[in-house]
Amino acid sequence: MPDAPLSDAYHNLEARFRRIALLGEAEAVLHWDYAAVMPTGGAEARSEQLAELKAISHGLLVGAETSDLIAAAKQNITNLDAWQAANLREIERLHRRSSALDEAFVTKQSRAVSTCEQAWRRARAESDFSIVAKPLEELTELVREEATRIGEVFGLDPYDALLDSYEPGGRAANIDPVLDDLAAYLPGFLEDVLEYQASRGPAIMPEGPFPEETQRALGIRFMGVLGFDFERGRLDVSHHPFCGGVPDDVRITTRYDENDFTSALMGVLHETGHALYEQGLPQEWRLQPVGSALGMSIHESQSLLMEMQVCRSPQFISFALPIIRETFGGSGPAWEPDNILKLYHKVERSYIRVDADEVTYPLHVILRYRLEKDIIAGKLATNDLPEAWNAAFKELIGIDVPDDAQGCLQDLHWYDGDLGYFPTYTLGAMTAAQLYQAACAAHPDIPASITRGDFSVLLTWLRDNIHGNGRLLSGAELLTRATGRPLEAAPFKSHLKARYLPD
Amino acid sequence: MPDAPLSDAYHNLEARFRRIALLGEAEAVLHWDYAAVMPTGGAEARSEQLAELKAISHGLLVGAETSDLIAAAKQNITNLDAWQAANLREIERLHRRSSALDEAFVTKQSRAVSTCEQAWRRARAESDFSIVAKPLEELTELVREEATRIGEVFGLDPYDALLDSYEPGGRAANIDPVLDDLAAYLPGFLEDVLEYQASRGPAIMPEGPFPEETQRALGIRFMGVLGFDFERGRLDVSHHPFCGGVPDDVRITTRYDENDFTSALMGVLHETGHALYEQGLPQEWRLQPVGSALGMSIHESQSLLMEMQVCRSPQFISFALPIIRETFGGSGPAWEPDNILKLYHKVERSYIRVDADEVTYPLHVILRYRLEKDIIAGKLATNDLPEAWNAAFKELIGIDVPDDAQGCLQDLHWYDGDLGYFPTYTLGAMTAAQLYQAACAAHPDIPASITRGDFSVLLTWLRDNIHGNGRLLSGAELLTRATGRPLEAAPFKSHLKARYLPD
Repeated sequence: MPDAPLSDAYHNLEARFRRIALLGEAEAVLHWDYAAVMPTGGAEARSEQLAELKAISHGLLVGAETSDLIAAAKQNITNLDAWQAANLREIERLHRRSSALDEAFVTKQSRAVSTCEQAWRRARAESDFSIVAKPLEELTELVREEATRIGEVFGLDPYDALLDSYEPGGRAANIDPVLDDLAAYLPGFLEDVLEYQASRGPAIMPEGPFPEETQRALGIRFMGVLGFDFERGRLDVSHHPFCGGVPDDVRITTRYDENDFTSALMGVLHETGHALYEQGLPQEWRLQPVGSALGMSIHESQSLLMEMQVCRSPQFISFALPIIRETFGGSGPAWEPDNILKLYHKVERSYIRVDADEVTYPLHVILRYRLEKDIIAGKLATNDLPEAWNAAFKELIGIDVPDDAQGCLQDLHWYDGDLGYFPTYTLGAMTAAQLYQAACAAHPDIPASITRGDFSVLLTWLRDNIHGNGRLLSGAELLTRATGRPLEAAPFKSHLKARYLPD
Repeated sequence: MPDAPLSDAYHNLEARFRRIALLGEAEAVLHWDYAAVMPTGGAEARSEQLAELKAISHGLLVGAETSDLIAAAKQNITNLDAWQAANLREIERLHRRSSALDEAFVTKQSRAVSTCEQAWRRARAESDFSIVAKPLEELTELVREEATRIGEVFGLDPYDALLDSYEPGGRAANIDPVLDDLAAYLPGFLEDVLEYQASRGPAIMPEGPFPEETQRALGIRFMGVLGFDFERGRLDVSHHPFCGGVPDDVRITTRYDENDFTSALMGVLHETGHALYEQGLPQEWRLQPVGSALGMSIHESQSLLMEMQVCRSPQFISFALPIIRETFGGSGPAWEPDNILKLYHKVERSYIRVDADEVTYPLHVILRYRLEKDIIAGKLATNDLPEAWNAAFKELIGIDVPDDAQGCLQDLHWYDGDLGYFPTYTLGAMTAAQLYQAACAAHPDIPASITRGDFSVLLTWLRDNIHGNGRLLSGAELLTRATGRPLEAAPFKSHLKARYLPD
């Protein structure tokens, strides 16, 4: 770290937040273990271990001593360099956010989450919203209170107060125009794509089986091609794929279907995008807030840039397909590049967000974003959710939802108290398109280098423009510096046109 | 827990030690992860995570508040039931032990450990004791100081103060006679065994390869036979096999040699003995000191009872061999029961403790026990260690040590500051023999049930007499209750005679 003269208060804060970060890292490893290897009998002990670590780090985060140190450090802010000042800003943000809610409220809310989540599991299994209606209403009331309290501390509207925790600096007023732009564009575009794809006929699924071990070896090979550092990370299996661990030991997971290699392969490349971000965070700011990843939409932009912009492109497929064919001994029409691209570019109207393609996915997200804003604003009663969902679905995606399990009960988020998260998926998709366009503008040889399996120029550009910045800048500043412009729908739309419609 | 009226102080202590235990459990999982799955790049972050957890739990353990609570709880000790009183006793023991050493001393010692360990790695690689002589002298001086300080707190001789941390209640004065008994008996016995085995000719090694996955599946099958609960534990791979994790999620590890299945198999059964102890600790005292395992010699007795007393017996081999043969498709003379027993009962004079057989192992331990007692008592200068080692080795085991790498440099323990640990291996072996003899006396059908692969009677006896007691009793009390006698060499000697000499 720099040798600039430091106020003691700032130094003490760094020491305190280093301890908080170490506790968070321990939690991350315990969480990975829980998802990837823990036997079921360990669950109770694990949740108590995690609760204890959380309680200790919460105590360090909200204590009066932390307030005093922040106040003292701010008095000497002119002594701090840009990174230190940004670190202090992030420290204060974390402290104020956590301090906005007293322990009694947090306990009450966490009980409501647990009740609602359990009811949701039954409701979804039986496709019966009424089972979860009451717990959802109670939980949502508490989330509204949380949003109001945090909003008061930061001078934010309630919805923005929630959004801000996933997307620091994110504001509905900025998101609305870009998502409205997409919402207006996509339904017509979708019609055109479906018509074009129908005219080309269906893709053929390559025939398996594709043994798990072989799929795993292939995934590891391509992770290495993308730049994943295996001295600082692993690939494992879990039911819900994720990217966890810590920056110097990033743990990504996937799950395998022995009848279909295509989904685990793209899943691994997606998580590798997340992992490259974590591995590229600024080494000299490890364990400080400013050294951590910026927010969910930048994080998602890194996975979607790798998966959607790069690895589903004809360039990557032309590099990867010979290796894939050789690995599985594939031959015949199903293994031709055109057919594999057809598979990877298949678009269709469907009910389930997590299975949706790149074109319809934003529509699933916009639907949720609009509904959750109305819920927080008190304009939509949770009791009316199924009806509102089905109407919006028909309008945006154009089909009738057959039941609530395939409708408003499909995602855990709201039933877990997570409102304000959904837009980050599509902000990430748009950011990915804008970043890849800028990277290719700066280095026009990137697409050609991908056909040779050379990711070095792209990765260096991402390291310099995104990964290495941690939380030094806001998301908007970061994007503007990297691409010359604030977030726009245009690069994403032109990406979709180029990929899904004829020239 | 019981409903007896409780002093608030005792309750508060339980809450505090519950937190310490949860931090310890988190450490245990992080340690398993480190040994079994962590990539090398994660090492630095991991050691910082562990140091932070240790610092927090040390703070909870030694704080003045803990002293005050202990004093207050002791005033109301008559209100506590036997388990609570034993818990308070263990709490006080842990607190006093940790408080005996100030932070400056602990830091100094931990630096000396790290210096000495690094020097030892080079010294062993080059078989040159002089490389580590000075760091060992400095570290040993600090260990002597530690022993003296802790000894003063508990009114113990310095060596006993060290021994007591691995073996609560263990005293050299009690150990000396049983180990002297063995030391007098074994050299002559060893001569007889070697002569007898020479007359029978050598064993034949079954020919591999034995694929790792097949060995693993076999190990898992036998773990299940012994009673390992896979809902509460796992089997993995690590360079140094161990039993870790937490009682409701016990992680054992092994390593495989594809040319020789015999060693990993017995390794797994050995660790399973440790694991059964952990899984059988009293459920209602989870996370309290009285609910944890008693000490190293009882722990080792559980692994050696399973491995040496049971799984290397003709009864177990007659049950297991058909399964092993079928698993590997083995046939021919190498796969006959007599030959497999010959392999598993092979005795020889050798230099390396960890590779030693059941007959010579105690001699390796007695040598170390005597030398480390002299080192702590100041009777043996660490500079004179190689010479003293080689002389004692010749006397006890009867061969000349060729170099220090195969002599006094072979084990990490002393170079890591661990003096007082060695005797627990052989105390464990003797305890195992005494316990198995008592179990079979109580249930004479146990050996016959082992030939059917039925471990239920034995496991129930161990649960009742050992596992379920946690730290309620001292090691001596536990053994006396379970076997009717204090620890003696006789059962171990008669076990050796029965196994290694003709009837």
